[in-house]
Amino acid sequence: MIKLPKFLTCLSVAAIGLALLTGPVQAEVTSAESAYVFNTLLFLMCGFLVMFMAAGFAMLESGMVRSKNVGTICVKNISLYSVAGIMFYLVGYNLLYGIDEGGYLGSFSIWGGDDSGLTSDTPDFSGGYSAGSDWYFQMVFVATAASIVSGTVAERIKLWPFLGFVVLLTAFIYPIQASWVWGGGWLSAAGFSDFAGSTLVHSVGGWAALVGAILLGARAGKYGTDGSVTPIPGSSMPLATLGTFILWLGWFGFNGGSQLALGSGIDAASVANIFINTNMAAAAGVVAAMVATQLLYGKVDLTMALNGAIGGLVSITAEPLAPTIAQALFIGAVGGILVVLAVPLLDKLKIDDVVGAIPAHLVCGIWGTMIVPLSNTGTAYGTQLLGVVSIGIFAIIASAIGWTLLKFTVGIRVSEEDELTGLDKSELGIEAYPEFTR
Amino acid sequence: MIKLPKFLTCLSVAAIGLALLTGPVQAEVTSAESAYVFNTLLFLMCGFLVMFMAAGFAMLESGMVRSKNVGTICVKNISLYSVAGIMFYLVGYNLLYGIDEGGYLGSFSIWGGDDSGLTSDTPDFSGGYSAGSDWYFQMVFVATAASIVSGTVAERIKLWPFLGFVVLLTAFIYPIQASWVWGGGWLSAAGFSDFAGSTLVHSVGGWAALVGAILLGARAGKYGTDGSVTPIPGSSMPLATLGTFILWLGWFGFNGGSQLALGSGIDAASVANIFINTNMAAAAGVVAAMVATQLLYGKVDLTMALNGAIGGLVSITAEPLAPTIAQALFIGAVGGILVVLAVPLLDKLKIDDVVGAIPAHLVCGIWGTMIVPLSNTGTAYGTQLLGVVSIGIFAIIASAIGWTLLKFTVGIRVSEEDELTGLDKSELGIEAYPEFTR
Amino acid sequence: MIKLPKFLTCLSVAAIGLALLTGPVQAEVTSAESAYVFNTLLFLMCGFLVMFMAAGFAMLESGMVRSKNVGTICVKNISLYSVAGIMFYLVGYNLLYGIDEGGYLGSFSIWGGDDSGLTSDTPDFSGGYSAGSDWYFQMVFVATAASIVSGTVAERIKLWPFLGFVVLLTAFIYPIQASWVWGGGWLSAAGFSDFAGSTLVHSVGGWAALVGAILLGARAGKYGTDGSVTPIPGSSMPLATLGTFILWLGWFGFNGGSQLALGSGIDAASVANIFINTNMAAAAGVVAAMVATQLLYGKVDLTMALNGAIGGLVSITAEPLAPTIAQALFIGAVGGILVVLAVPLLDKLKIDDVVGAIPAHLVCGIWGTMIVPLSNTGTAYGTQLLGVVSIGIFAIIASAIGWTLLKFTVGIRVSEEDELTGLDKSELGIEAYPEFTR
Repeated sequence: MIKLPKFLTCLSVAAIGLALLTGPVQAEVTSAESAYVFNTLLFLMCGFLVMFMAAGFAMLESGMVRSKNVGTICVKNISLYSVAGIMFYLVGYNLLYGIDEGGYLGSFSIWGGDDSGLTSDTPDFSGGYSAGSDWYFQMVFVATAASIVSGTVAERIKLWPFLGFVVLLTAFIYPIQASWVWGGGWLSAAGFSDFAGSTLVHSVGGWAALVGAILLGARAGKYGTDGSVTPIPGSSMPLATLGTFILWLGWFGFNGGSQLALGSGIDAASVANIFINTNMAAAAGVVAAMVATQLLYGKVDLTMALNGAIGGLVSITAEPLAPTIAQALFIGAVGGILVVLAVPLLDKLKIDDVVGAIPAHLVCGIWGTMIVPLSNTGTAYGTQLLGVVSIGIFAIIASAIGWTLLKFTVGIRVSEEDELTGLDKSELGIEAYPEFTR
Repeated sequence: MIKLPKFLTCLSVAAIGLALLTGPVQAEVTSAESAYVFNTLLFLMCGFLVMFMAAGFAMLESGMVRSKNVGTICVKNISLYSVAGIMFYLVGYNLLYGIDEGGYLGSFSIWGGDDSGLTSDTPDFSGGYSAGSDWYFQMVFVATAASIVSGTVAERIKLWPFLGFVVLLTAFIYPIQASWVWGGGWLSAAGFSDFAGSTLVHSVGGWAALVGAILLGARAGKYGTDGSVTPIPGSSMPLATLGTFILWLGWFGFNGGSQLALGSGIDAASVANIFINTNMAAAAGVVAAMVATQLLYGKVDLTMALNGAIGGLVSITAEPLAPTIAQALFIGAVGGILVVLAVPLLDKLKIDDVVGAIPAHLVCGIWGTMIVPLSNTGTAYGTQLLGVVSIGIFAIIASAIGWTLLKFTVGIRVSEEDELTGLDKSELGIEAYPEFTR
Repeated sequence: MIKLPKFLTCLSVAAIGLALLTGPVQAEVTSAESAYVFNTLLFLMCGFLVMFMAAGFAMLESGMVRSKNVGTICVKNISLYSVAGIMFYLVGYNLLYGIDEGGYLGSFSIWGGDDSGLTSDTPDFSGGYSAGSDWYFQMVFVATAASIVSGTVAERIKLWPFLGFVVLLTAFIYPIQASWVWGGGWLSAAGFSDFAGSTLVHSVGGWAALVGAILLGARAGKYGTDGSVTPIPGSSMPLATLGTFILWLGWFGFNGGSQLALGSGIDAASVANIFINTNMAAAAGVVAAMVATQLLYGKVDLTMALNGAIGGLVSITAEPLAPTIAQALFIGAVGGILVVLAVPLLDKLKIDDVVGAIPAHLVCGIWGTMIVPLSNTGTAYGTQLLGVVSIGIFAIIASAIGWTLLKFTVGIRVSEEDELTGLDKSELGIEAYPEFTR
């Protein structure tokens, strides 16, 4: 998702230039304006798919929490998506992309939204796409990181302080570290590669969730003093399943749109490869998680199968273009297994992750980023590790500062009584299913 | 959504003409056939997004009614979408677009579905898009107006008479007033502007819903004789939330497709701007409604947050292209606040609007239409008021005639006993959730 | 969905060739590379719509089974989609398309995923689309056939044996018979026409479901020894409705993408026609099923209305391009009525089809295939019958072998006790709605 034209795009631009000189082959190439429209269309189409992931997270989380907290998780999901977009406009975008080459920090300013070069008599299509379409695509990305946090800290966090953290995450934490790679900052210069955000989006969301879960503490009754773990089943498995399918759908936009171009045959074929690898990694994650739970526990676990899909998707996100299908299946399958292994590990550490977001997004995000050199020969394991570690440290410190500030000012956790009653009654004064529950 | 080529489109068409004369710059422009494909693709892509809004309304309304009426609301939503398409084919389309310039009434005939100019040896792409793709896009629009009515009059209206009103609305009421603007009729000639239908779709649906709600009367038990208002909570907040997210997604198609063209760089950039403004107005609507309910009632109201999103979306629909992002945020935020203020107002008037469609679609539709001149310098407040008032009067009178006719012939309201039992048992003989409710 | 260039595509390719010779009209035609991008984009966009149908089936089936089996149906739907993709990669694709012209059996090999012609200095766009995009589109198709089976045999089949059948269906049964038509095999040579798969996808899924239902037997308590039929209502009508809307949405991709090209004006207009006919057939199916149930039973039946939509969609799938809108309405309406008539017929035969998939997919699939010659003058009733019968015989025999093998090795049906308790507890050890049901 670097904004600089990619090698392949350069090739096709060169081809157009050639065509302009040679004349008769013109009909063989895509015109600059056609390429501009194609590229813009890719951002818009993939953007609305990513936007819909907000609904996917809302449904996944609605299904995984108890009915007494479902309304609150719904309001959190629609408001975090809203807040993320507004903060990205006010601060995030220029912090992400207004960075010097090889730099450490972008600029603080409101995004101007300028496509004005187009309205002149001689429209300028040299940018290759509408700046607005790119902004839209980047904007819908931001909310994803915040959605990951939402699921982990559910059922015990206060609404407004949570939104306070979303402001910090989407205005500062996410854009600053993303600028190091996608903005062309120091990690990009160092050769770190993260195609669509296994680390920049998913691990960062996962780190923020992990720190939040630790500072918040577990839900009442989850962990006994004797080391016992009490499963707290979610209220609606079909909604959780629907949410996973929506995320899967949205991921074609998430990874496919990160090709950043559709204006040449090579770009179009690349997006197709990305769609395939994205799908196959998710499929392998599902099957691997099902087989693993069957072998480990003697029964298939539905929530593990769902998180296996997400784990597979996160795993392929760092490099969805270069792998062969067989490699994509391998990368996704390992992701699915990592999810199955990481969930009980977290429970041992008494870290209460309501929806399993840390295994699926953080653990698989690291795995996906580290395995990039398997298929992308332009990368190195050492550089990938550098990125994972440095971004991890930044995300942990920044999140810890944020959560701690909130904890010792406004407070982040509801009272024990409110937690018992359910957040819907205490925070919203409603019930999500007034007729179904006793 | 006027079918006449827009100024900007003309520009790009002119550019193509120029290119044909000058030769060597050909590869710089989009060819006529490419533009034709792009424009057609926009209609198809945005059309399927708008089609999916039918599912959004179905889920929103399913979540907002009591479980005993959920099956009926489902059958109403899938059948109104079906009936709307059929009526638009039989009558609506030519009533809408078969109107003389500056005229008052289109022609009554079945749409021919003619793209035959393409199959000749020298295909004619001068129309700029496939007539079928445009028809598809316009067809999916129609159902939206009917969906608005469905939510307001839920839980007490008979199924078949409701569908009878849908026939009137989609075959006559909607197309006739829409022809005055998008068909190039007298309001268009007067300078009234409504880009994607704040008035033509949403207010008209809202007026029809308002008249229906008044003639139907409130649900049993909603308003006490002592002026008390009994809240009747909906059966499923996550379904209502899902519905809102689907509507939000669909709205990119609703507003973006109303650019009517994607065949030039300027059009593509315009669609991108529309996507951005649409998203930001909705986001502002959510945040504004949340803050407003927190301040007014001391708690965030989930259903207000959801309707705040819809209110923001309706507000930006009259002019999603011209505003800056800051203006879009302002327009959407006011929409969200209007929703919060209008809901209790309706209750004071004892007008029972089950899903809050009148505040979100009618009130915000008026607001969005009246604020167009803020950003669109080619419009005037007086002309906008003329459109709002004249279309409002037409919609009220036409709806009143329709509802009254139905009321005094077949009857529109179920018996008190059936209302108490629930419409699912009396109208359908089923239960929506046979295992969950007592 | 034949991979050979279609007549109309040839025309536009010819036009490009002409343009290259004549020079000055170049800007009038779509360039080869633009056409390549458009075609690829069609596959990708329609492909993600078809992928989302997996969510539609999951929701439809979740809503139609009892709550004690909802988790199992969810895991079956996400895993069958995963397995279908993997098997299509390992075996299916080359079995489908690696067949000699007029042949009977394709080749057994893993799909290579080769778009390598593009990376050379002189990219080769002569294929007209990215091979990967086509593969993606064909891959998402396969799962549909398996989804149909899933619904019919729900509430009593074991999880892993079901997935075993999915392997057989998606790796062998579906590709072999589909190769006879879309791969250019003997039925294609004989003139049999099935545009998007009324027979090749829907009837085949329906036959496999029928054989499975017979070999499995009915659910406990469904049919009394005295010939009585006990209705077993589904757990959630709004989820069933949502699933139907998602399927409807996905069908635009299913049928529209089967045009296989968007790179010319004629192709774009064709896709638009397909979208229209697909929508109108579904709409007619809804209305027809509602009217039929009102007349037959005195009440509208929601599940029949939903299956009416699906019946209409399946009916138009064999030929969504050639019919006029009036013909599409007729074809879909008959589909809706066939569903209403076939459901009680199955009950009389004591064939227990949980979601009504056999009426909607098998019966309407046959109807849709047989009525093709009404609008497509290049086909004949006799040839259509030949295809329906020969594919039917193959699907029945192959499915019977598969189901029987599974039945007498691992067993396909859960114990009576497990069936009574519900598959979620016995197969998964969870509850789908732990707080709602007693």
